[in-house]
Amino acid sequence: MVVAQVNPPRGMRDFLPSEKAKRERLLAVAKNAYLNRGFQEIETPVLEELSRLQSGQGGDNEKLVFKVQKRGEEFASALEAGSELADLGLRFDLTVPLTRYYATNQAKLPRVFKAIQTGPVFRAERPQKGRYRQFIQCDIDILGDSSILAELELLSASLSALSDMGVTGATIRVNHRELLRSNIESLGVSEADSLSAMITIDKLDKVGIEGVALELGEKFGPAVSAAATKWLSSIDTQQIPQQLAPLFEAEFSAQLRYDPTLVRGMGYYTGSIFEIEHPESSSSIGGGGRYDGMVGRWLGDDVPAVGISLGIERIVDLVHSASSMRPGLVLLIDGPEDAARAMRIQAELIQKYRVRLELKPKNLKAVLAELADSFDFFASLGEVENATQLEIKPLG
Amino acid sequence: MVVAQVNPPRGMRDFLPSEKAKRERLLAVAKNAYLNRGFQEIETPVLEELSRLQSGQGGDNEKLVFKVQKRGEEFASALEAGSELADLGLRFDLTVPLTRYYATNQAKLPRVFKAIQTGPVFRAERPQKGRYRQFIQCDIDILGDSSILAELELLSASLSALSDMGVTGATIRVNHRELLRSNIESLGVSEADSLSAMITIDKLDKVGIEGVALELGEKFGPAVSAAATKWLSSIDTQQIPQQLAPLFEAEFSAQLRYDPTLVRGMGYYTGSIFEIEHPESSSSIGGGGRYDGMVGRWLGDDVPAVGISLGIERIVDLVHSASSMRPGLVLLIDGPEDAARAMRIQAELIQKYRVRLELKPKNLKAVLAELADSFDFFASLGEVENATQLEIKPLG
Repeated sequence: MVVAQVNPPRGMRDFLPSEKAKRERLLAVAKNAYLNRGFQEIETPVLEELSRLQSGQGGDNEKLVFKVQKRGEEFASALEAGSELADLGLRFDLTVPLTRYYATNQAKLPRVFKAIQTGPVFRAERPQKGRYRQFIQCDIDILGDSSILAELELLSASLSALSDMGVTGATIRVNHRELLRSNIESLGVSEADSLSAMITIDKLDKVGIEGVALELGEKFGPAVSAAATKWLSSIDTQQIPQQLAPLFEAEFSAQLRYDPTLVRGMGYYTGSIFEIEHPESSSSIGGGGRYDGMVGRWLGDDVPAVGISLGIERIVDLVHSASSMRPGLVLLIDGPEDAARAMRIQAELIQKYRVRLELKPKNLKAVLAELADSFDFFASLGEVENATQLEIKPLG
Repeated sequence: MVVAQVNPPRGMRDFLPSEKAKRERLLAVAKNAYLNRGFQEIETPVLEELSRLQSGQGGDNEKLVFKVQKRGEEFASALEAGSELADLGLRFDLTVPLTRYYATNQAKLPRVFKAIQTGPVFRAERPQKGRYRQFIQCDIDILGDSSILAELELLSASLSALSDMGVTGATIRVNHRELLRSNIESLGVSEADSLSAMITIDKLDKVGIEGVALELGEKFGPAVSAAATKWLSSIDTQQIPQQLAPLFEAEFSAQLRYDPTLVRGMGYYTGSIFEIEHPESSSSIGGGGRYDGMVGRWLGDDVPAVGISLGIERIVDLVHSASSMRPGLVLLIDGPEDAARAMRIQAELIQKYRVRLELKPKNLKAVLAELADSFDFFASLGEVENATQLEIKPLG
């Protein structure tokens, strides 16, 4: 026998039946929580025009796009001309496609559009533990509502989805980009340097106040460094700013934490920003924020927008309960000649079980052991004429 | 306002909420029918190594692969060397990935593996009505069972899935590749020319007996043409061959039709072949067959395999019933200051409805009209303190 040297592409995964069942169940639970709150599911293609994926909205992710080659004549002439060989790319998130979708379909969508999207996204990152080149995102977004009601709904819905999935004890760090920007400016950083300062402040969790002050000093001089030390040492998380106050009056406010130093990577955020944390996960299990400027890039007119994305890949690791599938039964049959009778009885049993037909193998014990992680019972068809005559035994 | 010139990539689609809801419902129903019969869902990456997608198993589809460019250094040096610039490709079906998956994961799978796969596949075809460059497939396959029980289970499960989706009146044309091959040889066609003759015979529905005889004559001379006319004029669909007999003794046999001229495009079929038809659909709504040689290409050892794929894109068009979603209610609120109360009442209502919160707009009638295809009722929050006090009215 040839030793198989066959693997999925680097950084990408096959899912075994038990893993797939768990992922499907969690996604279904989350989607259901969102559907129940009046959000509507949509779908966009896995591919988008490359130019849209590299228009400056996606930050570092734009460098990680898997590019799809032009085809036929177009490819040949691009190769000859030495011009761009790719015209499409695999989406790196669901937000850029959503804003494109909204611009395309606005006339057919409600004025305030509450969207659910789940699906695979792709990033050509160096593969490492817990980071994959294809992974699932599960997003909700509200477009067309500039009021804080949108933030309230997203936070409430996300916390409900998490709780329905069995994830309790999550907290959401909250900040506001405009406040962060003005805090940074009052350190003596110019508006043009604000984003660069954010990148440094984003490292606070890792390098501490001293580390941040040091890097800001290197970038912007000792006065900024000193001001930053003073600011970061006197952070008051109880002093909720007026822009965020309604969130901290909501029923779920005990799960919120105001963090004036929260940055969130993406350049496109314009207002409130969120990061969802869980004590059992070293990295965040979700996040989002307001990005009022993005739709305008495609449409001309700005449209207010805010979204939250759940990190399903990490949530799958947090949830330990088994799949909630119906009990499974293996029905052993002596040969294909019993198929008609077996399938008739299978149809009866389906009221109560998932039913797998199995030609009785020589090594029955080994085969039943193989099936024990997905099935719960077994029975031999024998000469039985209806389901009630079967002797159903627990498997394993 | 700028006129939006934003569309999904050519041949690819956005799905509006009502379309997406219908697709999700149909897929869930089909998957459930399969899960109930002991099939297990798996997932493979959307991308596979390009060399595996172009190894000669996929017929014409191999020419339609969207190729993904190498990245970084590897791309630069391939460009300089004038060698292959792509290393990955988007899968064009779910069968090639399944055989690769089985070879990769065999040790962790049951000896007889009954797989469900649904997901997007990609073909760079010239876009035309009803043909898309990204579309969904929904496949079941049984690997490791060479007996006719596998065919019986697949046919029964597929017909149940169709019926559960609301598609009745489907018939399945059945043939056997070995019989077809021997019929073709007895026309005087050499074994080497057999595939070429099949391509001609595959046109029977379109060009009739005369057209097929004409083309076979051009390819292989007048004797073959005459023999073909004789064969095609005397087809007896009642004379079920022994290899297929058990299928025609099954409970669902009334929905089968033996067709000795059925070809099915793919080169990899080795035994029984199927094509699912429906009187309201001009093209087939599914198909499949036995492909015992494919896994062996990756693994060395051959593994018996047979599968059926449902054409979900066509089935979506056949089914006219609306989505079976829970009734939806629009809860109108006066302003964000009522959010806490609104969300408390929303939580009560979710027992019974999907509940969308809506800031009461100036143009209430227009907004309700917009929502009427996805929601069924509306109510004003007003000063109400619990759900029972609401006056719930039908929407539209």
